[in-house]
Amino acid sequence: MPKLNENYLNLKESYLFSEIAHRVSEYTKANPDKKVIRLGIGDVTRPLSENVIAALHEGVDAMASSDTFKGYGPEQGYEFLRNAISEYYKKNGVDVEPKAIFISDGAKSDTGNITDIFGNDNVIMIPDPVYPVYVDSNIMCGRNNIVYISATADNNFLPMPDRSVHADLIYICSPNNPTGAIYNHEQLKEWVDYALENEAVILFDSAYEAFISDPSLPRSIYAIEGAKKCAIEFCSLSKTAGFTGTRCGYTVVPTELVFKASNGKEMSLNAMWNRRQSTKFNGTSYIVQNGAAAVFTDEGMAQCQENIKFYQENAKIIASVLDKKGIRYFGGVHSPYIWFECPNGMDSWTFFDYLLNNAQVVGTPGAGFGENGKNFFRLTAFGGRENTIEAMERFDKLF
Amino acid sequence: MPKLNENYLNLKESYLFSEIAHRVSEYTKANPDKKVIRLGIGDVTRPLSENVIAALHEGVDAMASSDTFKGYGPEQGYEFLRNAISEYYKKNGVDVEPKAIFISDGAKSDTGNITDIFGNDNVIMIPDPVYPVYVDSNIMCGRNNIVYISATADNNFLPMPDRSVHADLIYICSPNNPTGAIYNHEQLKEWVDYALENEAVILFDSAYEAFISDPSLPRSIYAIEGAKKCAIEFCSLSKTAGFTGTRCGYTVVPTELVFKASNGKEMSLNAMWNRRQSTKFNGTSYIVQNGAAAVFTDEGMAQCQENIKFYQENAKIIASVLDKKGIRYFGGVHSPYIWFECPNGMDSWTFFDYLLNNAQVVGTPGAGFGENGKNFFRLTAFGGRENTIEAMERFDKLF
Repeated sequence: MPKLNENYLNLKESYLFSEIAHRVSEYTKANPDKKVIRLGIGDVTRPLSENVIAALHEGVDAMASSDTFKGYGPEQGYEFLRNAISEYYKKNGVDVEPKAIFISDGAKSDTGNITDIFGNDNVIMIPDPVYPVYVDSNIMCGRNNIVYISATADNNFLPMPDRSVHADLIYICSPNNPTGAIYNHEQLKEWVDYALENEAVILFDSAYEAFISDPSLPRSIYAIEGAKKCAIEFCSLSKTAGFTGTRCGYTVVPTELVFKASNGKEMSLNAMWNRRQSTKFNGTSYIVQNGAAAVFTDEGMAQCQENIKFYQENAKIIASVLDKKGIRYFGGVHSPYIWFECPNGMDSWTFFDYLLNNAQVVGTPGAGFGENGKNFFRLTAFGGRENTIEAMERFDKLF
Repeated sequence: MPKLNENYLNLKESYLFSEIAHRVSEYTKANPDKKVIRLGIGDVTRPLSENVIAALHEGVDAMASSDTFKGYGPEQGYEFLRNAISEYYKKNGVDVEPKAIFISDGAKSDTGNITDIFGNDNVIMIPDPVYPVYVDSNIMCGRNNIVYISATADNNFLPMPDRSVHADLIYICSPNNPTGAIYNHEQLKEWVDYALENEAVILFDSAYEAFISDPSLPRSIYAIEGAKKCAIEFCSLSKTAGFTGTRCGYTVVPTELVFKASNGKEMSLNAMWNRRQSTKFNGTSYIVQNGAAAVFTDEGMAQCQENIKFYQENAKIIASVLDKKGIRYFGGVHSPYIWFECPNGMDSWTFFDYLLNNAQVVGTPGAGFGENGKNFFRLTAFGGRENTIEAMERFDKLF
């Protein structure tokens, strides 16, 4: 009989967003006449920008003729896209060589699969609350030595390193999902210093970097000196360019990340990730990569910026109602997420049901992101304008 | 300091096809005037069929407008595609429910990632020679309890179960990569019976099923009675519809596959794979899935069949020269691969270099697929017609 991966028995029953989908589906089945507005999953709603659409069509056309047809591409991604991303970093003042950049079908795959290249006996530091994939993907491979770092209203959901605690791997997400909180340069520097002192690796999720509107705030961990010796960065076009359904992300594994194995042999994380991807991945669709490259042109960036401004306006609409109601919230400025305290002391799943049943608005219960989220709730600015306005009008009336 | 996955130290230096690419690149750099013909990597060269191109454009267009825009899709794939694949199975006389079908970005990802849901202490049976991902992905997670089953010219590269040996997981690839050998109904039945007797799971790779031209040969493991209780099937549009650069595959995990954990609790492999994919994957690009669905229409199947016939004709061209030279070979009928004994007793890497240097033809050395491949060589029928003819003319002159 096959031995199964019994670590799966230690996972929570269902992935957060599957549970939300399930509850919403039950509700709409029972109430087919009610208009449900979804501000739950961090999913964009604006169409892809014109020049991305043109590049995607061009990619499809290439597949229609023998002369331009593309078969297997490099598992690491096409050079044209790796170079374009390297240039994009340069524009933000950060030097990242194309060799360090691996194109994928999205940050979720990479943040999940990155566990493959590490051993089982690391001390893993994960903020609470945070994007559930970090915890789940570690539990799945039986890595239970997790130290949670507490993000609360008291520290503005920006926990700082505690030098009395050692870690080998540190997950950081900034701008944060779900709280919208963002570390400044000095704070991130403290994390990099802590990592270097501990010879730890930071797994830095910068999927929301495009929402940073203050140029003094770091959009990449590599804006911090020393980070190339201690950090892997995950990035995505999902939020930057509306690629949630188109699927493209990238991960930076600097060649400087070299550590000793127990036998003293040096192992390069860049080489390991390269081997992992070469063996268990076959590259992202050429069509999608061609579309992705268009994002990094000047025209593409300008068009994406328009969409981001649109979402930032939504965030303001949400925030203004919370302000009016005197509800304490975080995020919403350099982030598409608004993270607020559930009214009337409700716990977050109770509030989820309450809001769904009474205002037909879907949000995300904070409990899904960790213990510290149990009295918080996440709304996203990714809805349409009218829906966002209507949802917040209903919210306004309800409280 | 982070503990790394030191199992990577047990991998062969480089993934087979990376090594080939490296040698070819060195050769072309040194000989820029020579025309190299690549019949090495099993990569298609014919453009996508017209109706797939149309559906891909349609998918892109959907992304251009708010009304039709697609954000995150189901991690398991869109229902329209899961249903279409279920219908495709039905046409081949096999009943597979949509719930068992998981859409992915390709069979390589799934055959690699499937290790995630199994434990570390299984006896794993892997044919030699075979597609290197099976061995490498197991070595990567430290699963060294591998029993190799010997595929040789003596058994026509179709090893049968040895009932004196127990296995928990069994990799089978039919039509086989690299040998082109294919199991018939009776032979596969013997494997299914063996798996049921051992309560083992067969990991069945049917990426090349579309090349089967004899309707009496099984295109799916589920054509065999009892297989749903013991088999997972991996399939791909790479070879069926030329999707090597477009990226789409699917994996069937029947809901019947339920086994007991050590604590007696029943675990469903379908539920486990669903959880794995929900946590570490975010679905295949909508654009690509829309294109993939077009493959399964009557028009799509007819168009794909034309391409497959084209490649089958190439296989005949290759085989006829081997016939003429009296070189023993396998495959090439229900498979795009021709697997032949290296002439003059050469080992396969020596022959690789010899053929590259003297005929500028790239093939795949059998040693890359296992010990039993060390005196064999794989050529693929996926080249263009003129290139295939020219390559075999060069081959003809060389020996």
